[in-house]
Amino acid sequence: MAVANPGAMDETAMRHCIERKRDGHALSATDWDAIIDGFMEGRIDEAQTAALFMACVWRGMTFEEAHALTDAMVRSGESISFDRSQGIIVDKHSSGGVADIVSLVAVPLAAACGARVAKLSGRALGHTGGTIDKLEAIPGFNAALSLDTFIRQVESIGCAIAAQTQALVPADKRIYNLRDRTGTVPAMGLIAASIVSKKIACGAHAIVFDVKTGPASFTPQPEQARELAGWLVEICKGFGRKAIAFVSDMHQPLGRTVGTGIEMVESRDLLRTGGEDDRARSLVLKIVAALLDASEIGGGEERAAKALADGSGYAKLVEMVEAQGASRGALEGMELDAKPLTVKASQAGFVQSIDVVHLGNAGRRLSQHDKLGGLFVTAQIGDRIEAGQPLARVYGKDKEHVRNLEASFKIGADPVEPPPLVYDTVT
Amino acid sequence: MAVANPGAMDETAMRHCIERKRDGHALSATDWDAIIDGFMEGRIDEAQTAALFMACVWRGMTFEEAHALTDAMVRSGESISFDRSQGIIVDKHSSGGVADIVSLVAVPLAAACGARVAKLSGRALGHTGGTIDKLEAIPGFNAALSLDTFIRQVESIGCAIAAQTQALVPADKRIYNLRDRTGTVPAMGLIAASIVSKKIACGAHAIVFDVKTGPASFTPQPEQARELAGWLVEICKGFGRKAIAFVSDMHQPLGRTVGTGIEMVESRDLLRTGGEDDRARSLVLKIVAALLDASEIGGGEERAAKALADGSGYAKLVEMVEAQGASRGALEGMELDAKPLTVKASQAGFVQSIDVVHLGNAGRRLSQHDKLGGLFVTAQIGDRIEAGQPLARVYGKDKEHVRNLEASFKIGADPVEPPPLVYDTVT
Repeated sequence: MAVANPGAMDETAMRHCIERKRDGHALSATDWDAIIDGFMEGRIDEAQTAALFMACVWRGMTFEEAHALTDAMVRSGESISFDRSQGIIVDKHSSGGVADIVSLVAVPLAAACGARVAKLSGRALGHTGGTIDKLEAIPGFNAALSLDTFIRQVESIGCAIAAQTQALVPADKRIYNLRDRTGTVPAMGLIAASIVSKKIACGAHAIVFDVKTGPASFTPQPEQARELAGWLVEICKGFGRKAIAFVSDMHQPLGRTVGTGIEMVESRDLLRTGGEDDRARSLVLKIVAALLDASEIGGGEERAAKALADGSGYAKLVEMVEAQGASRGALEGMELDAKPLTVKASQAGFVQSIDVVHLGNAGRRLSQHDKLGGLFVTAQIGDRIEAGQPLARVYGKDKEHVRNLEASFKIGADPVEPPPLVYDTVT
Repeated sequence: MAVANPGAMDETAMRHCIERKRDGHALSATDWDAIIDGFMEGRIDEAQTAALFMACVWRGMTFEEAHALTDAMVRSGESISFDRSQGIIVDKHSSGGVADIVSLVAVPLAAACGARVAKLSGRALGHTGGTIDKLEAIPGFNAALSLDTFIRQVESIGCAIAAQTQALVPADKRIYNLRDRTGTVPAMGLIAASIVSKKIACGAHAIVFDVKTGPASFTPQPEQARELAGWLVEICKGFGRKAIAFVSDMHQPLGRTVGTGIEMVESRDLLRTGGEDDRARSLVLKIVAALLDASEIGGGEERAAKALADGSGYAKLVEMVEAQGASRGALEGMELDAKPLTVKASQAGFVQSIDVVHLGNAGRRLSQHDKLGGLFVTAQIGDRIEAGQPLARVYGKDKEHVRNLEASFKIGADPVEPPPLVYDTVT
């Protein structure tokens, strides 16, 4: 029943594909190619595509199907090609979290160590932040680079972070919008194809993934995150790219700040001062070490820590910001509201859990009308808290409107072990 | 998560409904009402609806959901209301089969016994025949009655068979088209709601269902047919209607003829001559007995057989045909091709099985350009056949174009027990 000619995918052929997937069979690479082609050209409508995606949520997809779908999606648009003989290009991807400042710190830090990092990034989605929104909080910063400018910047200063463009993988946005509307997001193969297609089109020779797990992530259970990590790495390998994936924690905010500009400020300060010995810094060092390893530079966390301590990471951030239209003054002039509100614990005890989705949404709202609005979270899971002790500070114009933040911190009598920072590493 | 106000079903509320069904929960009656309302008014698009239907195929539906969907579909259009104090109105429905002439015979026969039968009927679908197509093969026959004319005819002569109108259950056609395109036909609740909604809107106080089982039916396995029969009866009861459902065989053609006009000729002759003691006649008598029982007339199969033998059933057919614009002469003037081709067995043995779908499709093709074209099937499952003995006759203008009909009859050495005619009766 495979479709011989991709151009032949029409309503009837698509119905047969839906029925085969519904009945638990795998579709061929030719089928997937014809489906994406037909969908993008309007020969296959959204109703049939949505029914197929729901059948994928139900029946799952084989690895071969996910690879074929990824390939078809890549071919829906342009692709960047970096000359491997000029050196390895690396990329870093996070599956999305709250207070996830890793990209903003790791990309310039790895570049400061000699890696060449090309990262196209997305905007905020739901309660999770978007790297591009955070960068654009720097007055004058230009994330909308042309592909040529993007490539030239990576070649000249060693790193660039720019907004995803519709020229690469145009199928992804249309498919994601449809999946979001039709309850067909949670299919491992569809998730993996969406993520990897953009990485493949972006041209990096090696990719470091950070797959979050916890209530605020797309893979709440560690097993789900491990599974997704496995798919991402395997599909990349199928395209001849090197890949490694960390499974890291999202039971609490990774960094201390939640918002857009406020997270840029935290990232800037981590690079400028070397940072406190906290979870964000720790994950940054692991991911930079992986980027250096993938770049065949090596040196591990020690080399990364040195570039953090000697200021070369911060210098690279300034260089990148300047290359993308903003000034050092604009970056350093970003200052938080001097009079934040403090959210205090009304009872003593141990922090049992944190409602990260609620904090993420609050941070989004606070930064909506004030780029530097947001939260600074002082309490972490397992902390011993006294009554009246601060849990978080609230910044920005809308700080008076934030309600009930204390309820996001569940305080109880029993001591609690904090969740691990990294659950697993998949290669 | 129930939607308080049906008018409030929008893209977001629908997404939540899809997600709940996807995750295995039942939707509320209010949800189903709002979904159908939103779909018909264009506030809910086909993509979301198709995804919901695929989730229904996956997760199934509760009886309460099917009832609520049926109710919402009925309310998408007009409904006929017959005055119960003027007597019981009955209706008969078949789930669709090949050579299924029961309605054409049973409706006038039951009316001849004093029942009042109001039947709106469909056209051919796939390999299965349509009662309306068969009636329209009578020159001058008018199946497109207005609802008023339909009601008046039932009241005056005791029966009418007319084409379904878009005034009743307009949601059904739009939903069925979408399900057909998107591989979401096989969900018991959706199938039952489609069938029952039209029966409820048609106004009968009692309905006799004939659910086919076998390879040429929508419920190939007897358990599936029993399940569907149970749903149909229960949903009808939920609307305060009496109902009974037969589960009958579709491993071979029910009657002897397959086509459109040719099936009308077989029905006419069965009523005119009393018929042979075959499977079609036997099922007709059972179904007429059920219609008489539901009408509180009684008399069972004996009464039905008497009306068949004394010609009153045939007189009622003529009366109905005349009431709907055709003449006795037109009915009686329908004559088959005098020189049919004969399909012969090339080997001796017992008929093991018959490819009913293939015969149904051949009958459809033969009657496409010649209303009296079609097949007369002489062999039945279990028959002992000699080499050279006829299996079927082929009638009509296109008879030369029919290929490979012999292959529809699998002949083998071992004796075979014919399938039962009726598997079960569900009340």
